[in-house]
Amino acid sequence: MDTESRKVLAGLVGRGCPGSLATLREGGPSVGMVLCAPDGEGAFLIHVSRLAAHTGDLLADPRVALLLVGPAPGGNPQAAPRVSLRGRAAEVPRESPGGQAAARAYLAAFPQAEAMFGFGDFLLFRIVPEEVRFVGGFAKAFDVAPSELKELQESGAAGSAS
Amino acid sequence: MDTESRKVLAGLVGRGCPGSLATLREGGPSVGMVLCAPDGEGAFLIHVSRLAAHTGDLLADPRVALLLVGPAPGGNPQAAPRVSLRGRAAEVPRESPGGQAAARAYLAAFPQAEAMFGFGDFLLFRIVPEEVRFVGGFAKAFDVAPSELKELQESGAAGSAS
Repeated sequence: MDTESRKVLAGLVGRGCPGSLATLREGGPSVGMVLCAPDGEGAFLIHVSRLAAHTGDLLADPRVALLLVGPAPGGNPQAAPRVSLRGRAAEVPRESPGGQAAARAYLAAFPQAEAMFGFGDFLLFRIVPEEVRFVGGFAKAFDVAPSELKELQESGAAGSAS
Repeated sequence: MDTESRKVLAGLVGRGCPGSLATLREGGPSVGMVLCAPDGEGAFLIHVSRLAAHTGDLLADPRVALLLVGPAPGGNPQAAPRVSLRGRAAEVPRESPGGQAAARAYLAAFPQAEAMFGFGDFLLFRIVPEEVRFVGGFAKAFDVAPSELKELQESGAAGSAS
């Protein structure tokens, strides 16, 4: 992958942003919007209400897919950089090892979500990618090894701070 | 549903826009970006390459989900209006009854896609919604009857022309 594409990918996976979360429901696909934060270890965090249908999906079957889309250059949506990943979601209980660190990582991306952390009906899930595909624009598509995501998240987070 | 929410929903379903398409892949979910056009009859049209993984998914199993997200008021992504639907996708061959009308509806939304209609490896699919959920913002969620989508698409298309 060229340096510019890698930088765009790092920006997508290294910062909190809205994403499309696909889950299984009654054996078929379902898709909804979630806020999605990098955990800095190559995975992604979402914080969802028990009342939401997708939360029930995740608790019943951990298989998920996630799509993150960046801004479209020149207003051409087909040129928008996007990363599409497939993996598994696991609940991160607040009291588990790493539970506090995960909550901090999520709140670093979405400080306005702090009030929701007081509600007992919200759960934090970690999505661990198993397959990652990056489309940097027309005819620029790359498979990315999940093991590269930690470094990409670090580099993307550093980019957003500067 | 209140009048303002209905107008926002009509705007989302009545105009061509990028969407997140969830499909089944090896029994699990997958999600990618597609351009999505209303067909004016309450369904949605996508035009996808045979080379794309999601096209193979659709040909193997018609169950799909689609998420359309509107602009977030005040830059707050959680307030963004969005419609999430589940349904089935069926290929619309160019020579089939309605094939030309479907192609015209797609190209009305995405005129720049005309060149792709010359390529034999692109297929047009119609997605017929079976379940529709509209989130108009915080604590504003509605189930929508699929039978209402035709009128909503007409009203949204008229809104975009004015």
